[in-house]
Amino acid sequence: MINIPSPIIDLEIVEKNIDKMMELCQKWQMNFRPHFKTHQSAKLAKIFKDKGIEKCTVSSVSMALYFAANGWKDITIAIPVNVLEIEGINILASSIKLNLLIDHLDTIKFLKENINHQVSVFIEVDTDYGRSGVFYKNTKTIDDILHIIQDSSLLEFEGFLSHTGHNYGAKSPEIGAEIFEQARKRMWKLKQDYRQTYPNLSISLGDTPSSSFADNFKSIDEWRPGNFIFFDMMQVNLGVCEFEDIALIIRCPIIGIYPKREEFVIYGGGVHLSKESLEFKGQKICGWLKYADNTNPSAGFPVISLSQEHGIISASKAYISKLKFGDLVDIIPVHSCMSADLYSSYTTTKGEMIMKFRSNN
Amino acid sequence: MINIPSPIIDLEIVEKNIDKMMELCQKWQMNFRPHFKTHQSAKLAKIFKDKGIEKCTVSSVSMALYFAANGWKDITIAIPVNVLEIEGINILASSIKLNLLIDHLDTIKFLKENINHQVSVFIEVDTDYGRSGVFYKNTKTIDDILHIIQDSSLLEFEGFLSHTGHNYGAKSPEIGAEIFEQARKRMWKLKQDYRQTYPNLSISLGDTPSSSFADNFKSIDEWRPGNFIFFDMMQVNLGVCEFEDIALIIRCPIIGIYPKREEFVIYGGGVHLSKESLEFKGQKICGWLKYADNTNPSAGFPVISLSQEHGIISASKAYISKLKFGDLVDIIPVHSCMSADLYSSYTTTKGEMIMKFRSNN
Repeated sequence: MINIPSPIIDLEIVEKNIDKMMELCQKWQMNFRPHFKTHQSAKLAKIFKDKGIEKCTVSSVSMALYFAANGWKDITIAIPVNVLEIEGINILASSIKLNLLIDHLDTIKFLKENINHQVSVFIEVDTDYGRSGVFYKNTKTIDDILHIIQDSSLLEFEGFLSHTGHNYGAKSPEIGAEIFEQARKRMWKLKQDYRQTYPNLSISLGDTPSSSFADNFKSIDEWRPGNFIFFDMMQVNLGVCEFEDIALIIRCPIIGIYPKREEFVIYGGGVHLSKESLEFKGQKICGWLKYADNTNPSAGFPVISLSQEHGIISASKAYISKLKFGDLVDIIPVHSCMSADLYSSYTTTKGEMIMKFRSNN
Repeated sequence: MINIPSPIIDLEIVEKNIDKMMELCQKWQMNFRPHFKTHQSAKLAKIFKDKGIEKCTVSSVSMALYFAANGWKDITIAIPVNVLEIEGINILASSIKLNLLIDHLDTIKFLKENINHQVSVFIEVDTDYGRSGVFYKNTKTIDDILHIIQDSSLLEFEGFLSHTGHNYGAKSPEIGAEIFEQARKRMWKLKQDYRQTYPNLSISLGDTPSSSFADNFKSIDEWRPGNFIFFDMMQVNLGVCEFEDIALIIRCPIIGIYPKREEFVIYGGGVHLSKESLEFKGQKICGWLKYADNTNPSAGFPVISLSQEHGIISASKAYISKLKFGDLVDIIPVHSCMSADLYSSYTTTKGEMIMKFRSNN
């Protein structure tokens, strides 16, 4: 029985979300390489495998080791190489097809000198997000990196990879579509410029908002979205999914009832939902109470504030009048990746326990 | 050797911070009941015990069980009773002096019917923070709760407890002092009104900002701050501590160097620092790089953005020009409680490993 804040997942929705993303990839003949940083679970990864998916993306060496130990043989670590983790990288490279991200001459030189096994290298490209990657116009650096790769018998050039994370800031699906189309064209140009020398080079892109915003995925070889497996309030807010598509909630006990304030308090704070917040319909929210009327998932109330273990929900007098201590409410996280990361297991809506990887263990 | 984002604590600073808080409590003859939700570590708790502190505060039943298992015999769980956890509450009550928070008639009735051992009850009072607690003017509810307590042989009234969390929003130390003074007076009034019937009742208050803002702690019997053990950027920003007082940093490897953007990227994201952010000197920051010049801890640069595993730092061209891949930088978290919660151990500046409790395990 659930008596503390607990992440609950609906596997039927998970399956539907995966199938829909697979259809998109099939339609555009993109290799589907889902990002597992959202769910971080070997058991959920198995759902992908049963549908024929053999490749995945992760966000750390330790997460790659976890999925490699669970039978994944082709893994991309989608963060620039951390040279301090060369030992883990070599362990992975000795047993699976490992794909690494490089965006600097110094790190490819380091890799060339320190890798003991065959690895594949994506050059990460910054199409204008401004996080990591070689700026897309900087072909000089790209050429220098390729030169080092060519010079090594253990390094193989896989292609160009980019993350259009700026789409999370898109003010509308139309603007999101424009951002993505611009990035796609920039990657396409790179493909055209380099495919004479590297006929098998792969263009890897993919994030959940773009999967919905864009209507042209031409020339993209590989698609790497992650969040779509669960979705969350951020995706609702972006117009990327409906409330019905959300597969993860945090179930929280009610520990405070304050009718005069038109508020109640859940046992469920920043350590259960993460401190990520969002401007939703003109209001800062830290989560969203789902199914306030038991039938419509979008009928709900905002979590207006989170401290370490308390969450305050602003609700109607009528709703609050029906609450009892010990009742459980279902809170949609603002950002499911960040909330899921806080737990070492999920419970399914059918009561099954599903173990997962956890950061910093 | 540190090769991934890792929380590092300086035990000398920890000791100094504890000593300073103990002096404040001694000066005002307040019982010191530190909140352990910040560090969550039996080994750090031992430092308090060695200084004669026998009582502590925690924020969950599971954290209470952890500290009880580590020899703490007098624990306050400073969150309203979650009736669904009565089993854990009864286990604790059977072996230690357990102090619970009640702010509603229904929960005290529940407790009366379901508790099997002696427990102490604080009535939580809302002095105007607006999170949990009986509103300070609502003496009718206080009387009703006291009536139930009197009626039970296992429940004992401990006193009134409040958390002036609104002090975290104080725009200046002077405003913080006013907020606290108002709360103190409201609690003092309750003490005067009820001490004829309950001569031993205790007034429990305490948070880190108020420890610094206030200059009058008269009539307060017990003090429960937590954050002061580590401090963080939030406390610097409030004017509560100096950079020199901060005992916790997250040490992060450099994985991206972008001189043209005047930025670099650390392996260190929301899963390592938490997504808590802050307006600091007119800029939104997600952390602060310390000791950019190796001598002055306040000389530093802001973490301007965090994704799941990446952090972007905006820095000077001169600083960036000296960086190498694999260098480690020390990031002060915005909120040390939230960052510390993400780990299962600390490393001290002398290289010792210190285990800790972790939420959701």
